[in-house]
Amino acid sequence: MNITVIGCGRWGSFITWYLNKIGHQVTLYGRSSSKHMQEFYRNRSNGLITLEETVTLTSDLSAVNNSDIIVISVNSQGLKPLMEEIKEVQNKTVVLCMKGIEIGTGKRLSEIAGEAMEPSNKVAVWLGPGHVQEYLSNIPNCMVIDSEEDEVKERLVREFSSDLIRFYYGCDLIGNEVGAAAKNVIGIAAGMLDGLGLTTLKGALMSRGTREIARLIKAMGGNELSAYGLCHLGDYQATVFSEFSHNRKFGECFVKGESYGDLAEGYYTVRALTELSESYQVELPICQAVFEILYQNKDIKTILEQLFARNLKNEF
Amino acid sequence: MNITVIGCGRWGSFITWYLNKIGHQVTLYGRSSSKHMQEFYRNRSNGLITLEETVTLTSDLSAVNNSDIIVISVNSQGLKPLMEEIKEVQNKTVVLCMKGIEIGTGKRLSEIAGEAMEPSNKVAVWLGPGHVQEYLSNIPNCMVIDSEEDEVKERLVREFSSDLIRFYYGCDLIGNEVGAAAKNVIGIAAGMLDGLGLTTLKGALMSRGTREIARLIKAMGGNELSAYGLCHLGDYQATVFSEFSHNRKFGECFVKGESYGDLAEGYYTVRALTELSESYQVELPICQAVFEILYQNKDIKTILEQLFARNLKNEF
Repeated sequence: MNITVIGCGRWGSFITWYLNKIGHQVTLYGRSSSKHMQEFYRNRSNGLITLEETVTLTSDLSAVNNSDIIVISVNSQGLKPLMEEIKEVQNKTVVLCMKGIEIGTGKRLSEIAGEAMEPSNKVAVWLGPGHVQEYLSNIPNCMVIDSEEDEVKERLVREFSSDLIRFYYGCDLIGNEVGAAAKNVIGIAAGMLDGLGLTTLKGALMSRGTREIARLIKAMGGNELSAYGLCHLGDYQATVFSEFSHNRKFGECFVKGESYGDLAEGYYTVRALTELSESYQVELPICQAVFEILYQNKDIKTILEQLFARNLKNEF
Repeated sequence: MNITVIGCGRWGSFITWYLNKIGHQVTLYGRSSSKHMQEFYRNRSNGLITLEETVTLTSDLSAVNNSDIIVISVNSQGLKPLMEEIKEVQNKTVVLCMKGIEIGTGKRLSEIAGEAMEPSNKVAVWLGPGHVQEYLSNIPNCMVIDSEEDEVKERLVREFSSDLIRFYYGCDLIGNEVGAAAKNVIGIAAGMLDGLGLTTLKGALMSRGTREIARLIKAMGGNELSAYGLCHLGDYQATVFSEFSHNRKFGECFVKGESYGDLAEGYYTVRALTELSESYQVELPICQAVFEILYQNKDIKTILEQLFARNLKNEF
């Protein structure tokens, strides 16, 4: 199939490489000002991923008009302005490979994409665990594709599956999107524990973190079990434990007072989640703690003691 | 309170140390033939844990008659013969700090203990994450106490809580016991992935492992969410990721063909779980895979491919 991938960061370029490898006709779009895109133009490589000559590189967004499928992998808060640029498309399937919630509106990314385009277009999400570095070493993993329309899911799973990535059919768009976004916040919390020498508390973090996200998903109308699916818990190895996790590393550097590169995606998501916590009246003690540490400069040890003091009660 | 701890292995001796530290009058029982017990008699230390002079050491099991509470931490398949030895006790609270299911009967440990004694005795379980080494470094954690009787739970949580261990009240004895036992099997599976260089699949293992245990718990009459509680998922940091985990290490050594010390507890549990899978007609693909590798000498790569081939379907 003819596919345009928008976004030449780590995931976008991996997806380009992957979809080309399994036989699709792929165009990678990146802005000409992008450092990553300039690298691809120069060497067809960003140091990690090298793209075959069969991949077309472009900085002309009208490329989307020649594609059946548009895969998007940009930063979450940047999705709305991007959709504004491609809103005229027709009869496309837009696949979102990104994790976040819009600050201010609490909207899921599929809502933002769906609202921007006319109804002949379909929207799906592609979520779940797996590190680019490990896929490139040919280590397989499981991921999820979800959409409001079964036909869209089935087509994408059929077209995108391979020995490297086995897809489950998602059955809960709300839960999968909220779960996927929230895992970055749990990743930051995990990094904070690592930075404080409290790695052993990551067990309790996993159990209590999934619990509060499950409650939020349920309040939003999703299936609480999705928090325990590939989109959220299934991504904890990569996010909560891996050295490669940007969110985990960000949390660790933050509590150690060390510098980190870019802000992690979870930094934005936690703000959106505290807003959802309020609108849906669901307590999210771990997200709230991360928010207060990152945005309100609260004392970490005090926050942690408060979390612990909550615990003399029933588990579920 | 007057407490006898039966079992001088890693957990039993830690619990002795802990309960003494928070002010109880503790006796540690171990057989005189036990290597660990001999060390305690000689040095009051097993190299890791040093017991204060206020702890009484004994190899006389009648010590239990002078205690309000009997804490038991022995290997699971050894619980029944032990209960035979102390079945005459009266008005005691027996607290099981151990994880397993009886092979052959599929009985939970609280069932075995309860059935062995007369009804004036109460049974509780003390489960959840935490490594002895890290508690000894004063790193706190959360655990669970569960019992069929609220009064027993409340008394134990009140008497056993401290800044080091914060207890949740468990509300599902079936789920907590089955979940706690099963986590050792997931730990073995995790070690197998590590040994095969497939650490990245531990994310999918966490998501799918919790799922099958949740299904089993539900079929047995428990609350499926317990699989996601401290007893099971909450123990994954310690069991699935930690270097200290005996079950994980066992699985890793097994697939590498390296020697390991004692058989891990999960080696026995997986057999009991495959029996439960059959009696309750619940598929446990991961437990089944571990069973076939450990007991039936099946080829690991083939088993893993079969697990992957299951995945083109709905997630929940």
